[in-house]
Amino acid sequence: MICHMFAPMSPKERIYLDFAAATPLLPAVLSAMQPYLSEVFGNPSAIHQEGQRARGAISDARLAVARTLKSRPEEIYFTGSGTESNNLAILGYLESLHFGGRAYETMEVITTAIEHPSILELIPRLKTKGVKVRQVEVGETGLIESASLLSVLTTDTVLVAFAYVNSEIGTIQPVLRLAKLIKEFASAHKTTIKVHLDAAQAPLWLPCQVAKLGVDMMALDAGKCGGPKGVGILYINHSVSLSPILSGGGQEKGLRAGTENVAGIVGAATALALAQTAYEERALKARAVQEATIALLAEIIPQAELNGAAGPARVCNNLNFSLANIDTEYAVVWLDRAGIAASTKSACAGAGSGLSHVVLACTKDEARAKSTIRFSWGEEVT
Amino acid sequence: MICHMFAPMSPKERIYLDFAAATPLLPAVLSAMQPYLSEVFGNPSAIHQEGQRARGAISDARLAVARTLKSRPEEIYFTGSGTESNNLAILGYLESLHFGGRAYETMEVITTAIEHPSILELIPRLKTKGVKVRQVEVGETGLIESASLLSVLTTDTVLVAFAYVNSEIGTIQPVLRLAKLIKEFASAHKTTIKVHLDAAQAPLWLPCQVAKLGVDMMALDAGKCGGPKGVGILYINHSVSLSPILSGGGQEKGLRAGTENVAGIVGAATALALAQTAYEERALKARAVQEATIALLAEIIPQAELNGAAGPARVCNNLNFSLANIDTEYAVVWLDRAGIAASTKSACAGAGSGLSHVVLACTKDEARAKSTIRFSWGEEVT
Repeated sequence: MICHMFAPMSPKERIYLDFAAATPLLPAVLSAMQPYLSEVFGNPSAIHQEGQRARGAISDARLAVARTLKSRPEEIYFTGSGTESNNLAILGYLESLHFGGRAYETMEVITTAIEHPSILELIPRLKTKGVKVRQVEVGETGLIESASLLSVLTTDTVLVAFAYVNSEIGTIQPVLRLAKLIKEFASAHKTTIKVHLDAAQAPLWLPCQVAKLGVDMMALDAGKCGGPKGVGILYINHSVSLSPILSGGGQEKGLRAGTENVAGIVGAATALALAQTAYEERALKARAVQEATIALLAEIIPQAELNGAAGPARVCNNLNFSLANIDTEYAVVWLDRAGIAASTKSACAGAGSGLSHVVLACTKDEARAKSTIRFSWGEEVT
Repeated sequence: MICHMFAPMSPKERIYLDFAAATPLLPAVLSAMQPYLSEVFGNPSAIHQEGQRARGAISDARLAVARTLKSRPEEIYFTGSGTESNNLAILGYLESLHFGGRAYETMEVITTAIEHPSILELIPRLKTKGVKVRQVEVGETGLIESASLLSVLTTDTVLVAFAYVNSEIGTIQPVLRLAKLIKEFASAHKTTIKVHLDAAQAPLWLPCQVAKLGVDMMALDAGKCGGPKGVGILYINHSVSLSPILSGGGQEKGLRAGTENVAGIVGAATALALAQTAYEERALKARAVQEATIALLAEIIPQAELNGAAGPARVCNNLNFSLANIDTEYAVVWLDRAGIAASTKSACAGAGSGLSHVVLACTKDEARAKSTIRFSWGEEVT
């Protein structure tokens, strides 16, 4: 497959298969942003008309996000990235408990070894504070099984954090079922456990209405669903209190200081609404591509090992496989010269940094984890 | 003055006098950003062409900022706001010392009572950690006097943080002189004291080359100098180590995780370069407006009390005065209806939240602090 692609294509022919890393900014989103990149430039905290127009745009964006997620507007917060949303949810919740008088040493956080770096990289920081962190085992396809989850919950557990869709192998967790299990455990043990969902990879393909997910917090990233880079969204159920990471002006009800990125926020709300409109039809198209590609792969590269689940537990726009003994980093460079943008793993896990922590955690197979290649596409790919 | 302005102007006639809160996005800046809001959409951490074009844009932006500030490119970091830059400099430096083995209880931070909320609001967080925070007294015009500064420095002092230009009253600190004093004290006492400068209000009017300032860190905000909202810059001298606030992917050399806001970063670099180009001529124009306005004010509202310095220690685009017994919050609303956008104080200090902490700290006069009104203009105002 790779050899046939070696002849460079013209730039126009390029095929972009790295949607999981970044999506193009939709023209409709840019149009919605444009007024806030020109004539509406006021500081949303100012009381004059220029400020109030900006303030109004943010309120409208918050309402639009709430409508899309079927939450209350006051449960929607804007941040600077999906990473910041994950950081704020996890660090902010634990710090809030700490300020409420609970010792860090009595808190336990549950996550998995296959999370995005914006969750995994918090673990050493949590441990430094004294927080216990336990990782629930995932199956070979990356699924969190109910029994495994139940086996790690304890009466010290205060938070469970995991991704809706794995950014590397596309595994979709049964979020509502897992959230219910957690809540039932908490209720039976007269304790409180909050559930945080990293949903950055979901909006184009899966429902993101909070009632369908049963989670307390949910992080989204505009740049992963047709919106601008540099804007994250955090849904925080009204029952949850967080401490801020960034302090300053009282923006976002004191939870996220800094003059609001008005254009970016408008773009994020527009992109999320568009992503969640008719995502089922979009998913059907992407699923057809996925099925055809998996069948083709089995035929032309039979030695390729599919990483993650086959079928409905895999997000419809993702293909990830290992080619043992192939330098897939070089394969990606090769494909790039041939006009195809792909990746070995999550962009945030860094280029050239060795193996996939996700595939390693799922398969315990280093050779397989070192030779991953990921394709992730948008609806226009056929 | 206010009465004459009561008749509403048409929207086209509006006079925007709140540059300290937010500046219009310059058309040239938007043009520079535009490719990164459309065809160049890759994730800068991806190794394919789409990613590398984005990566190249960030490298170019970093180089442009370094040229503007006359620093090394590797000393320039991009964040999500001026607020985040201030937070990262202060929290990140102390945490880095802490991880290096120094107890928080042995660290002392010096700042003033007239700082922006993005510095002031960190004080309770620092105190919670055990860090001592001392505020150097400022004079009636907001200036930090050498003797006052020297009187608070101790061998425990690790960091001094203050603003180049006060966002409310426009007082310009003698940065190089203060920085030298601090370094001399540190040298004489065989200790290390870093200096962080909040320069958010400076780039349009004052030199920002780091050698002219003698500081170790400097925070800038693109949205305050003709660039987009949602992007901050932090200069960090190569001698300073910081711990990150946001963890995740290794962006910004591990210091600021989250997919980079490529368009915003390009815009920030362009805006900063334009701001620092011919700032002297721009400042001369703004100074003429300031002198005329102060003279007019003395004539028509003799009871107005100028807050901050007169003359060169005041930034040339700022006018701030108190009108005792006047509800200036209402005056701002009134002016707004008359077509003039002004403010009572810093937008980040929040609308309707009572008195100016800056004017109170300078004058100890509550009535005066409750009745402030601020005008801050751009070069096009005559």
